[in-house]
Amino acid sequence: MSTTTMIVGGSAGLGLAVARQRVERGDHVIVTSRCEQRADRAAQQLPGPARGVGLELTEPRSFADALSEINRIDRLVLAATERGGAALPELNVDEATRVVTAKLVGYLELTRLLRPRFSAEASVVLFGGTAKDRPEPRSTLTTVTTQAVSGMVRTLASQLAPHRVNAIHPGAVGDSPRWASTPEPPGLARTPIGRLVTTAEVVHAVEFLLTNTGINAQDLHLDGGVTIT
Amino acid sequence: MSTTTMIVGGSAGLGLAVARQRVERGDHVIVTSRCEQRADRAAQQLPGPARGVGLELTEPRSFADALSEINRIDRLVLAATERGGAALPELNVDEATRVVTAKLVGYLELTRLLRPRFSAEASVVLFGGTAKDRPEPRSTLTTVTTQAVSGMVRTLASQLAPHRVNAIHPGAVGDSPRWASTPEPPGLARTPIGRLVTTAEVVHAVEFLLTNTGINAQDLHLDGGVTIT
Amino acid sequence: MSTTTMIVGGSAGLGLAVARQRVERGDHVIVTSRCEQRADRAAQQLPGPARGVGLELTEPRSFADALSEINRIDRLVLAATERGGAALPELNVDEATRVVTAKLVGYLELTRLLRPRFSAEASVVLFGGTAKDRPEPRSTLTTVTTQAVSGMVRTLASQLAPHRVNAIHPGAVGDSPRWASTPEPPGLARTPIGRLVTTAEVVHAVEFLLTNTGINAQDLHLDGGVTIT
Amino acid sequence: MSTTTMIVGGSAGLGLAVARQRVERGDHVIVTSRCEQRADRAAQQLPGPARGVGLELTEPRSFADALSEINRIDRLVLAATERGGAALPELNVDEATRVVTAKLVGYLELTRLLRPRFSAEASVVLFGGTAKDRPEPRSTLTTVTTQAVSGMVRTLASQLAPHRVNAIHPGAVGDSPRWASTPEPPGLARTPIGRLVTTAEVVHAVEFLLTNTGINAQDLHLDGGVTIT
Repeated sequence: MSTTTMIVGGSAGLGLAVARQRVERGDHVIVTSRCEQRADRAAQQLPGPARGVGLELTEPRSFADALSEINRIDRLVLAATERGGAALPELNVDEATRVVTAKLVGYLELTRLLRPRFSAEASVVLFGGTAKDRPEPRSTLTTVTTQAVSGMVRTLASQLAPHRVNAIHPGAVGDSPRWASTPEPPGLARTPIGRLVTTAEVVHAVEFLLTNTGINAQDLHLDGGVTIT
Repeated sequence: MSTTTMIVGGSAGLGLAVARQRVERGDHVIVTSRCEQRADRAAQQLPGPARGVGLELTEPRSFADALSEINRIDRLVLAATERGGAALPELNVDEATRVVTAKLVGYLELTRLLRPRFSAEASVVLFGGTAKDRPEPRSTLTTVTTQAVSGMVRTLASQLAPHRVNAIHPGAVGDSPRWASTPEPPGLARTPIGRLVTTAEVVHAVEFLLTNTGINAQDLHLDGGVTIT
Repeated sequence: MSTTTMIVGGSAGLGLAVARQRVERGDHVIVTSRCEQRADRAAQQLPGPARGVGLELTEPRSFADALSEINRIDRLVLAATERGGAALPELNVDEATRVVTAKLVGYLELTRLLRPRFSAEASVVLFGGTAKDRPEPRSTLTTVTTQAVSGMVRTLASQLAPHRVNAIHPGAVGDSPRWASTPEPPGLARTPIGRLVTTAEVVHAVEFLLTNTGINAQDLHLDGGVTIT
Repeated sequence: MSTTTMIVGGSAGLGLAVARQRVERGDHVIVTSRCEQRADRAAQQLPGPARGVGLELTEPRSFADALSEINRIDRLVLAATERGGAALPELNVDEATRVVTAKLVGYLELTRLLRPRFSAEASVVLFGGTAKDRPEPRSTLTTVTTQAVSGMVRTLASQLAPHRVNAIHPGAVGDSPRWASTPEPPGLARTPIGRLVTTAEVVHAVEFLLTNTGINAQDLHLDGGVTIT
C-alpha cells in the first residue's frame, strides 16, 4: 500500500519541491492551496499520482468540509507561508489577526481534524524559518509565528504521541524566486559554507525528518551555519 | 520625576505583585485589566500612586481609546494571561482565535501604540512560562503562545531598539492560588531546589530585567532548575 | 574515486555501526581504536575496504605518527567515548584530566592535523549525547564534555569553514549493550515515541549530517522526544 | 553572622569588581589568584574585610592545602579566565591541556572540595562568555571551555542540589582594559542597545544570580542583545 503524503501549501516553493520529491519516490501526494484551481494545477504537473485540495487556512471552520475526502495520512507537511510582512510601525491589526489565525489556529485545527486519519507510522513536519531567532527588520510577525512553530512542535509531539512531530527552519534559500535574482542576498557574507542553502537541501532535510523514526520534537536549523556568526 | 510603570494584566496574580513592588519603590503605576472596575479596585489597594485602565486585549482596535490618557511609559510589563486551556482534541477554534489575538496581536499592537510615549530609558518585560519548552498536557495553546513570547522578545528588541525587551518564564509558582492548596504540585519532585519558586522570586527577577541596563533580548527561566531534569 | 571516511572510535558500538554503513555504501573506511589490534580486527570484519589505525586520544602528541599514512579524508566522524563516570564526590583529578584531554584537546588536535588532508567536500560529525542538557547523576564529566562538544562544533565550523561540522546527540540507545538487557531503562517511560532510539536511527542521522550539504554548526538531538518531558 | 563570598580569579577584572561590590554590601570576601601576593594586594585594596588566597587552577592536586583555612562559603564565584587564545592552526597541545585542566578539572575539583563547607544557603556563579555560541576567530579554546561552563552549570546544579548553580555569559565589556581603548570594538555596530555592556551591569547580574533564591541551572547572557543579530 502506497504512502499518502499531504503537503499544506504545496502548490509552490518549498512545499511544491517536497511534493515532487515524494511523488518521485512513489507516494500518493495531496497538495493544498488557498485556491483549489492552483492546487489542482500543481497536482497535475507532478510526475505521479497527486491531487489538489483547496484549503483556506485563515478559515479553520471550513476545514472539515475541505478535508472530507481524505481518508488516511502517512506524512503531513505544513509548509504554507502567510505573507504578513510589516515592521512594527506599519503593523495592521486585521492582517496580523489573519496571519496568526492561519498559522497557529489553522495548523492546530488541521492537525486536530486529521489526527484520527493518521496511519500508525504517521509523522508531521512543520516549516518555520531562521527568522525565529534572528528577526527580519521588515516583518515583525514572521519572527513571532516561526517561534510559535517551535511551540507547536513541542505541544503536538506531546498531544499526538507516539506520532513524531518536527520542524525545519531554513535560512534564506539561494535558488528560491525571492533570492535567486538578488546579487548579494542578506546573510550570504556571513554564511560559513560560502553560499545560501538550496531547495534540494531543504527537501533532503524534510525527507530525513519524515523518515528517521527516532527524531522527535526537534527544531532543525538549515542555514549553512549562519547561527554561529 | 517619578518613574511610570504600566502593568498589563496587573489586577491579580504575578502582575499585581509586580505592581505592588513598583509602587513601594516609588513608581507611579498603571494597572490594566479586562474589566475597568477591577483595574480601579486593584489600583486603589496599592500603597501609593496608582490608577486603573480597562483594556480588552482581545479587541486591539479598542486600544487607542483606552490608552488615550497615558502620556509617558518608563517600564512596560506585559503580564496578562489568557486561559485557553484545552488538550488538542477539545481545541475550540473561536477560543483559540481569541487567545492568539489577545496574546500575540494584542501585545504587538499595544507596543506599537505605546512606543511613541516611551521615555529614553524605557524597557519592556513580557511574561511567558516554562510550558514553552515542556508542554502541559491539558493546554496546547499555552505552549504555542509562550513560545511566541520568545519570538516577540526578539522582534521587539529589534524593532524598539535601543529599548530593551526581555521575557520572564516562571515555572509553577508555589504560593499562587493555583498551586498553594495542591498537596503535590506537578514538577515539585523534580525541582532541584526542593520547592517551587515563589511570587517574591518572580517579582525580584522582573525587577532585575527592568533595571539591569545591559540585559536585552533574553528569555529568563525561573523554575528552581527543573530544566535539567 | 571512492570516498574515504575516518571513524575515530570506530571499533565498537555506534562508531562501528557507522563504519559498517559507510562500507556498505562503498566508502573506504578507516577505523581507529586505542588498541591497534582491536582497530585491525574491526576493520577486517567490515564487509568492504577498511583498515584499522591505533590512536590513543589521551596522548595528542602521538597523533602525528599514528596518522602519517592517511592522505585524504572526505568524512570524519569523532565517535570515541571516554568512560569517566563518577559523581562529584568521587571525582578523580587524574582520570578527569585524562578524559578532558582525550575528548577536548584530542579532538581539536586531531582536527588540526587532519585538516590539510580534507578533500574539498569534507565534513565532520562529532558524537555528544543528551546528557549535555540532562546530567546523569553518576557522571559529572559526561555532561561537561558533551556540552563541550557543542562548543567544538561551533568553533570548528568557524575554523574549518567552508567545511561543515555538526554533532549528533543520541539519547539512550535501546539496542546498545548497555541498555538492551535492562528491563526498564531510564527515560523510557518519558519517551513520547514509546521506546528508546535504535542504533540504526543514529546511523541514519549521522548519514544525514554527513551528506546534507547545507546543514552546518548544528547540534542534532535524537532521543525520541524526551526533551519536551 | 556575615556572609562569606569566595571569588576565584578575584584579583582583577570582573572578578575584582564583583569582590568590591560584595565587600561594600558587607560580605567577608576571599579573593584568589594564581599568585598569592597578587591575591593579597587585591584583598588589601578592598574597602572592607577581605583576604587573599593563592590558588593555581592548573594544579588541582594543590587545592586541598590552599583551601585548608577556609571554613565556610556562602557564595562561590568562579571568575578565573585562562588565556588560551589561538586559532586552530596554532593550537598548542600543552597549552590547551593546561587551559582545559584549569577551567574544567580545576573548577570541578574546587567545587568538590568546598562543598562540605557550603552553608545551607550557599550558591555558585560561574563566568562563561558569549563566545560559547559565537566563536572568536582567534581562540578556538574559548568557545569550547565557555560551552563547557554550561555543562558544569547543569551537572553541578544536579550534584550540589539543593544549592543553586548558574552562569553569567557577558559579551564584550566596554569599560574593560581590553575594549576601553579600542575605537570600534567588535560587535558594537551589531548591539541593539547601541553600546557594549559595562562592568557595573555584569556585577549587577552576578548579584541577581547570587541572591534570587529561585533561579537555578541557568545560563544568563548579558550582551545588550547581540544574540538576535
